[in-house]
Amino acid sequence: MKVSIIGTTGYGGVELLRILNQHPVFQIHSIHSTRGEIPIWEEYPHLYGILNERIQVIDFDQIGEESDLVFLATPSGVSRKLVKELANKDVKIIDLSGDHRLQNSLDYSQWYKLEPAEDVVVDQAVYGLSEWNEHDIESASLIANPGCYATAALLGLGPVAKEELIEPDTIIIDGKSGTSGAGKSLTKGSLYAEVNENFKIYKVNEHQHTPEIEQQLRSWNKHTKPITFSTHLLPITRGIMTTIYARLKTNWSTEQLLELYRETYNKHPFIRIRPLGNFPAVKEVAGSNYCDIGLHVDERTGRVTIVSVIDNLMKGAAGQAVQNANILYGLDQTSGLDFMPLYP
Amino acid sequence: MKVSIIGTTGYGGVELLRILNQHPVFQIHSIHSTRGEIPIWEEYPHLYGILNERIQVIDFDQIGEESDLVFLATPSGVSRKLVKELANKDVKIIDLSGDHRLQNSLDYSQWYKLEPAEDVVVDQAVYGLSEWNEHDIESASLIANPGCYATAALLGLGPVAKEELIEPDTIIIDGKSGTSGAGKSLTKGSLYAEVNENFKIYKVNEHQHTPEIEQQLRSWNKHTKPITFSTHLLPITRGIMTTIYARLKTNWSTEQLLELYRETYNKHPFIRIRPLGNFPAVKEVAGSNYCDIGLHVDERTGRVTIVSVIDNLMKGAAGQAVQNANILYGLDQTSGLDFMPLYP
Amino acid sequence: MKVSIIGTTGYGGVELLRILNQHPVFQIHSIHSTRGEIPIWEEYPHLYGILNERIQVIDFDQIGEESDLVFLATPSGVSRKLVKELANKDVKIIDLSGDHRLQNSLDYSQWYKLEPAEDVVVDQAVYGLSEWNEHDIESASLIANPGCYATAALLGLGPVAKEELIEPDTIIIDGKSGTSGAGKSLTKGSLYAEVNENFKIYKVNEHQHTPEIEQQLRSWNKHTKPITFSTHLLPITRGIMTTIYARLKTNWSTEQLLELYRETYNKHPFIRIRPLGNFPAVKEVAGSNYCDIGLHVDERTGRVTIVSVIDNLMKGAAGQAVQNANILYGLDQTSGLDFMPLYP
Amino acid sequence: MKVSIIGTTGYGGVELLRILNQHPVFQIHSIHSTRGEIPIWEEYPHLYGILNERIQVIDFDQIGEESDLVFLATPSGVSRKLVKELANKDVKIIDLSGDHRLQNSLDYSQWYKLEPAEDVVVDQAVYGLSEWNEHDIESASLIANPGCYATAALLGLGPVAKEELIEPDTIIIDGKSGTSGAGKSLTKGSLYAEVNENFKIYKVNEHQHTPEIEQQLRSWNKHTKPITFSTHLLPITRGIMTTIYARLKTNWSTEQLLELYRETYNKHPFIRIRPLGNFPAVKEVAGSNYCDIGLHVDERTGRVTIVSVIDNLMKGAAGQAVQNANILYGLDQTSGLDFMPLYP
Repeated sequence: MKVSIIGTTGYGGVELLRILNQHPVFQIHSIHSTRGEIPIWEEYPHLYGILNERIQVIDFDQIGEESDLVFLATPSGVSRKLVKELANKDVKIIDLSGDHRLQNSLDYSQWYKLEPAEDVVVDQAVYGLSEWNEHDIESASLIANPGCYATAALLGLGPVAKEELIEPDTIIIDGKSGTSGAGKSLTKGSLYAEVNENFKIYKVNEHQHTPEIEQQLRSWNKHTKPITFSTHLLPITRGIMTTIYARLKTNWSTEQLLELYRETYNKHPFIRIRPLGNFPAVKEVAGSNYCDIGLHVDERTGRVTIVSVIDNLMKGAAGQAVQNANILYGLDQTSGLDFMPLYP
Repeated sequence: MKVSIIGTTGYGGVELLRILNQHPVFQIHSIHSTRGEIPIWEEYPHLYGILNERIQVIDFDQIGEESDLVFLATPSGVSRKLVKELANKDVKIIDLSGDHRLQNSLDYSQWYKLEPAEDVVVDQAVYGLSEWNEHDIESASLIANPGCYATAALLGLGPVAKEELIEPDTIIIDGKSGTSGAGKSLTKGSLYAEVNENFKIYKVNEHQHTPEIEQQLRSWNKHTKPITFSTHLLPITRGIMTTIYARLKTNWSTEQLLELYRETYNKHPFIRIRPLGNFPAVKEVAGSNYCDIGLHVDERTGRVTIVSVIDNLMKGAAGQAVQNANILYGLDQTSGLDFMPLYP
Repeated sequence: MKVSIIGTTGYGGVELLRILNQHPVFQIHSIHSTRGEIPIWEEYPHLYGILNERIQVIDFDQIGEESDLVFLATPSGVSRKLVKELANKDVKIIDLSGDHRLQNSLDYSQWYKLEPAEDVVVDQAVYGLSEWNEHDIESASLIANPGCYATAALLGLGPVAKEELIEPDTIIIDGKSGTSGAGKSLTKGSLYAEVNENFKIYKVNEHQHTPEIEQQLRSWNKHTKPITFSTHLLPITRGIMTTIYARLKTNWSTEQLLELYRETYNKHPFIRIRPLGNFPAVKEVAGSNYCDIGLHVDERTGRVTIVSVIDNLMKGAAGQAVQNANILYGLDQTSGLDFMPLYP
Repeated sequence: MKVSIIGTTGYGGVELLRILNQHPVFQIHSIHSTRGEIPIWEEYPHLYGILNERIQVIDFDQIGEESDLVFLATPSGVSRKLVKELANKDVKIIDLSGDHRLQNSLDYSQWYKLEPAEDVVVDQAVYGLSEWNEHDIESASLIANPGCYATAALLGLGPVAKEELIEPDTIIIDGKSGTSGAGKSLTKGSLYAEVNENFKIYKVNEHQHTPEIEQQLRSWNKHTKPITFSTHLLPITRGIMTTIYARLKTNWSTEQLLELYRETYNKHPFIRIRPLGNFPAVKEVAGSNYCDIGLHVDERTGRVTIVSVIDNLMKGAAGQAVQNANILYGLDQTSGLDFMPLYP
């Protein structure tokens, strides 16, 4: 199975290389970027002697003829154009950007401040939240890979949202992400001296993953109300934690909720529900495709606190993309994804 | 004015040294610790050639006779005993621990899992939230210096809580702290390799600053309900951010709330209300006694998001302690505290 | 092939678990520690649901009967005792400590300040510098796995030392290591707040890897003189760099030396010689078993600067240990060790 | 005394603001940058409410008329041009760049790869190594402030170099610097995700501070030979350590050398010679103008290891610049510079 990657030199792209280079079925056929036709190791010296591929310019015809599957590790606003070019080619597409996630193009315009993809394209895109959308992913031709924050938040909220155990207007998601999520673009805010020993909130009530989370919540519970969602920048490279707060409709104990979570995710190898009293830390999933979840019900307030962590480049991007590719081709979901967390 | 410090070798204690060594009025008379009678620079080489004091054993009689003011930079559970020993001496006391903050001793027992101080001692203690309790601090003999998280949360909540603008059962405080807050005790969780590139939640719904925050909120608004308060460990040394969520009772705009905050803190030199659209980052107060606050009202949800940051060793501990000492002795609040943030 | 690990809860031990859990031939049969009989995930939550092994007390008879190979991830001073207990058992041993590396027991006493292992045991130990001692490793029963600094320094120096291209009294090795090298012992110097934003030199002219490096240098060139070797603590978790300086005997160009290095390490899959003008950074080998080397000859001074980097827990400890196990059992050296560096 | 700063928005410039804002004699009169005419706090929010200055365009006439002293915190290649424009104005100039440090313009061209300043300008420039050049600084009109690495290395080497105690062809300087030294320019190599958990060597045998160090060494000892000088990037914001190696001509003990250092720097308040067995770490001078030095003679090799640390933005840039301004105007050297290190 031959795959191409467009946007290889970003952090999501190079994480795809790490996974696919050892994947038992998918084979890296070509890598593309606008960075120039250089060997990939010149951009990423850690690949020296391991991956000798040259970056190629993007030739849609060639990709269409030679590859079975294309990963778009390109920014929002770019993927949309690439998908159009690849529309009539015989390739399946997994898009890591936000361009095809929102069914309502007005949401896209408003939150992304970019021109949306055409409705006809978005309509055939399948939202690739692997654990909750497996059936549709199996037969998709275009997969909109979820956002990193959205993945952590939705996997954490899924069971209580779907079972309608929480009051729909009380959901607050406090998100924290490592800086690799911001990609490699050269901005003052991504400089070491600005991020190091620092912690910032950003895009207050304006983060573009908000409508994506709300859309999925609505698919679970049509009474969903607007959520409060905050995002903060952690002085680490990899990792996302979402700390989620909501008021329970009825008295469930912590142990009862944990049991619900264990049942819900029983067949899903990448979700680990922590035992009572145990909460995950972001480093405990670093380099792996796991999403770890812990929770606690506070009887004083009637609220549940749910904590979910992922590696934003893995389960939050490249890892989930390959997981979706595995589903798409009927492989075991863990194929090529059996990385243990790198600890310490 | 002669001051003694007990518990000098902890991070709070050594920060007191940094401040007091250049204070125009207070003079470090003696420093005490159970670490042994060594020159302080052997424990803290950065003080070599600057501060030649020797650590002394604790002699309560001598302290009582020679010093005017004692700072207790000792852990909760220890300060209580020291205060008893100093009770009949002619010294004023500023206690940085949690031992004398909670008026209800049952709260202390429950949240600290320690034996409480005697009610008669706690009753005369004044809660040293400088900006809100100035009058009582002026005439105190024992000041209970606020907790680091509590300081950030309360300064952020004060104006809306006191004006009763928020629904009292909707307050959620998501706190994040640097590791110096955990002190110098040798625990696995404070090791570099465990904290670095990591981010953890801890004491979920069990943090001992919860009743302290609720007690002060009740003093502003008797309808206060139990809050949800979460604490996370940041991979930085200094800094606390609290991200605070609450639902507004009525429609206030972001600009109106900012105006309220500016007015409330108008005369308070260490509170900086950020302009519309601007939010503080923890490094922007590092090494200083500032508390910076930004906020935003989300019209979609009717909730306000308030962000407050402090340096946990300064405004969250030693800095506020000296600010309280300044108030106590009728000095300008900023005496010896005019440190600019160290950036980058 | 059944393996046991003693000292599982240290960072070297848990890295062995990461490797061996996916090794195609070696199977983790039992793990041992003095930490208590708990599931390993209680000590290392990142293993939750992946590795369900319980830590066991050390039962030498059982280990001897059931296991083929034992890894000792125990501190220097402890391994020596364990090896004695295992002496008459039918197991091969790979010792990650310094106890069996130094042929001269006086060197051990002087540099380690500990009682040395018996000469008769040390005499049968083989020094496990995989790339340079493959032949002896193949038939060893006790392998003394090299020190982390020693590995980086010796792989960097090997070609010029063996070819006697450098003046033997001019070797200076400036080493820098991440903190995981110091292990999990609770010392002030390993606290986050002490290591973070800091950089220290330690054990100046006293590091215990000095005689180990000199011993191997002497095996290459009997004219070897005492070296200068410095060690510094980096505020990172994983990674060692040694910057090595020596004066060349004759005029070799950078390109000629690089050619010598490429030839020397031609058959060795874990050594990557960087091209002219390119130097390795520690993160470019993180999580992998690679040792990357770059070098430059300065015509102004006649000195060569050699830079070598490894992941101290992999090629500097557990990775090389498994590499040696592979050699010992005639497997491909890369079996179970094909980790790509985790970047960024 | 009115001062202007050109290049205020770089890290050196903003550190000048931190110092000068509280300086007892110098008063910030105007700040200039090409960043645009915005309030300085928009670029540096930590200054909000503290420093309300607006950044101004550079008007040489106005600066010449209104200011007594100008600090150029501009890059090499730029300062040269500004000095020419200010040549006939009645202002003293302290240039933090490398443009006026090298007496031999060929050295400048070769190492900086830039066009050199005119010889006539360089000839009147005084090299501002405060502790060694006080006499010339007092009467200078143009001070070439030393490079950060050069400062650390020269203060460490000064006593043994001047006394000619070391063999002149054996000097090796292994330098390590925090990233603020690279400034705020947007390059891939300064991104958080590239620097974090990493450690790199750069400009191997090509660093532009090499000729500056050699020039000063020659002024102490005309037999000076080319040095080996390496520079590495530390994953910290502030701090430089140089680890210096040289062979002693004759047998001096560690204690004898320490005594020489103590005598040499006796009258110099910013140099702290650590006692026997004690070595400085970079964080122990953070935020201060200190240079701390430790050393050890290894009898096995006849070499001395000298360790010197500074805060690269303070003693390595803005701090030394103000120290030189103090000397220039006959003030106490420590005026406005009595910052204690910020620890932890």
